[in-house]
Amino acid sequence: MPSQINLAVIPGDGIGPEVVAEALKVLKATGVDVSTTEFPFGASHYLESGTILEDSDIAELAKHDAILLGAVGGDPRDPRLKGGIIERGLLLKLRFALDHHVNLRPTTIFPGVTSPLAEPGAVDFVVVREGTEGPYVGNGGSIRTGTPHEIATEVSLNTAYGVERVVRFAFEHAMSRPRKKLTLVHKTNVLTYAGGLWQSTVDRISAEYPDVAVDYLHVDAATIFLVTKPSTFDVIVTDNLFGDILTDLAAAISGGIGLAASGNLNPSGEFPSMFEPVHGSAPDIAGKQLADPTAAILSIALLLSQSGHTDAAAKVTAAVEADLSTRGTAARSTSEIGSAIADAVAQN
Amino acid sequence: MPSQINLAVIPGDGIGPEVVAEALKVLKATGVDVSTTEFPFGASHYLESGTILEDSDIAELAKHDAILLGAVGGDPRDPRLKGGIIERGLLLKLRFALDHHVNLRPTTIFPGVTSPLAEPGAVDFVVVREGTEGPYVGNGGSIRTGTPHEIATEVSLNTAYGVERVVRFAFEHAMSRPRKKLTLVHKTNVLTYAGGLWQSTVDRISAEYPDVAVDYLHVDAATIFLVTKPSTFDVIVTDNLFGDILTDLAAAISGGIGLAASGNLNPSGEFPSMFEPVHGSAPDIAGKQLADPTAAILSIALLLSQSGHTDAAAKVTAAVEADLSTRGTAARSTSEIGSAIADAVAQN
Ligand SMILES: CC(C)[C@H](C(=O)O)[C@@H](O)C(=O)O
Ligand SMILES: CC(C)[C@H](C(=O)O)[C@@H](O)C(=O)O
Repeated sequence: MPSQINLAVIPGDGIGPEVVAEALKVLKATGVDVSTTEFPFGASHYLESGTILEDSDIAELAKHDAILLGAVGGDPRDPRLKGGIIERGLLLKLRFALDHHVNLRPTTIFPGVTSPLAEPGAVDFVVVREGTEGPYVGNGGSIRTGTPHEIATEVSLNTAYGVERVVRFAFEHAMSRPRKKLTLVHKTNVLTYAGGLWQSTVDRISAEYPDVAVDYLHVDAATIFLVTKPSTFDVIVTDNLFGDILTDLAAAISGGIGLAASGNLNPSGEFPSMFEPVHGSAPDIAGKQLADPTAAILSIALLLSQSGHTDAAAKVTAAVEADLSTRGTAARSTSEIGSAIADAVAQN
Repeated sequence: MPSQINLAVIPGDGIGPEVVAEALKVLKATGVDVSTTEFPFGASHYLESGTILEDSDIAELAKHDAILLGAVGGDPRDPRLKGGIIERGLLLKLRFALDHHVNLRPTTIFPGVTSPLAEPGAVDFVVVREGTEGPYVGNGGSIRTGTPHEIATEVSLNTAYGVERVVRFAFEHAMSRPRKKLTLVHKTNVLTYAGGLWQSTVDRISAEYPDVAVDYLHVDAATIFLVTKPSTFDVIVTDNLFGDILTDLAAAISGGIGLAASGNLNPSGEFPSMFEPVHGSAPDIAGKQLADPTAAILSIALLLSQSGHTDAAAKVTAAVEADLSTRGTAARSTSEIGSAIADAVAQN
């Protein structure tokens, strides 16, 4: 790992710039040596410039050690932004171009945080979501579009190469955790081909990790247990779409999307990893200092731990935990929360 | 509607026969004129006979007015039942062969029932799940299977014909409910072809239903709101796979899969509709009178209301509600619950 982190920053749209400002405040407070370069990409940039993300932009971003992304996406009712053009042209494009095959999404119910569940118990699990395959590949089409004879398809593509590397990562990750438990989530009773590949890969790799206890849940049943027995999960490994769905549910049960961090990892280091809060750009509350920057700040903790700055990562997490445990009913602005956490980090 | 209901009954595996026995007890207590014919299909039948469901079996079932199915599926660790062979060869085969394009799954938190949510509010919505298309069509494959070069695909097929008929049903259904609200759930920002077909169909049909308020949620966001604001939903219309996932989550938040009923409907009446509890065969508790027959009994209420026996349906629902509201901590057997509800229906 380089001693200085050369960080590309994409604040993005809506509340993105606000939460990113606080995340950077906290990053600086850690004392870790960082240089940042800001990039303007997002819906506003697209509406002004007509471009979303050029190959040259990707090449430029790829020169950095890591990327911090706030949130991208404009007003969902704007016809010029229809069909997820920014999400696909920017966010997914980066995940694919930078081969972010591991999408790491931890879920904890922090002390002091109110879960919508009546009795959540001690919740601390992580979803390892595949990031470069499955139904996200954009391999679909339609014919006779807009007529009564329209047919539209979406193809989920799954490769042994792609599944094995994320499953391997998940087993390694499980080994680093006290409970060493891995749950594969899929829908093998219906999606037999993709599910078969996932199941056989997990079965095969599990022989190399005799200390990891492995089980399996259909995705529908997994949603039940996330609500009724969330404390039983440790590491969940799953495909791109199921991971998308389960991690929003996980965020909900652990106290909200305002606290959910994620890392789009390229574990080989060939390309920079990208860290982002799971939440979106929330245009309705943008610019009002109403957004909770905690998810962005926890994404900094993930960035630090993935860059080998384990102590700094622990400091950020501890400061967030302390802040969360004392959050009362008094509303604080985005920057008040960020400053409080940054101060705590600096004093530690 | 025929005055006598000519009902095909598939008790199935595991707890299926136990809950079906209670459902039939309650059906008889309504006084509605029913004749029943039992069919042995399921995992046990397959293991004994080597056949799951023949074309002639389907033809036989199709002669009935409706089908009641308990639950199918054997021991999940049995290698002879791998890859969902019973689920696909029996349950999905019937849904496709009998053109059950509307899968109706109501969700209510009944008085007296404990939700895992701390503050669920008044929950009363219904998911209209498409039943004959999407990722469930079995259109996938794999090459170089079992090698490091394996590629596995799953194709989601969506047709204007298939989407329009279920969307139309959902609008009609919304019109019959006080709130008249319809939420389309999909993932239009990623699955742009299938999502585009769903969105444009809803947009077009909505012009015919100016009284129905329409909105849209991505499937990931929908899981959040099902946990944080379940009372805001009225009618959800969605594709086969998203519907599968959301209805298990819906069952969880409303007090468990033991209460979730469903109807696989062929609204045109060309083929019989099929009613089944959402839960599975639960082999681990089978034969012990531990299963809750309520979901099967509520499926009878759905069957009755879909067959035009509205009064009898209301009686069954009322008896279930009364029973649920007085359920204490004393454990009752499957048949004790069934008898109590049947008695209440008979006395009404
Ligand atoms: C914005 C969208 C394309 C994205 C996804 O579906 O992956 C988001 O929901 C997420 O989970 O990061
Ligand atoms: C058993 C399985 C094939 C089925 C489905 O996926 O539809 C079940 O989960 C359901 O929801 O009825």
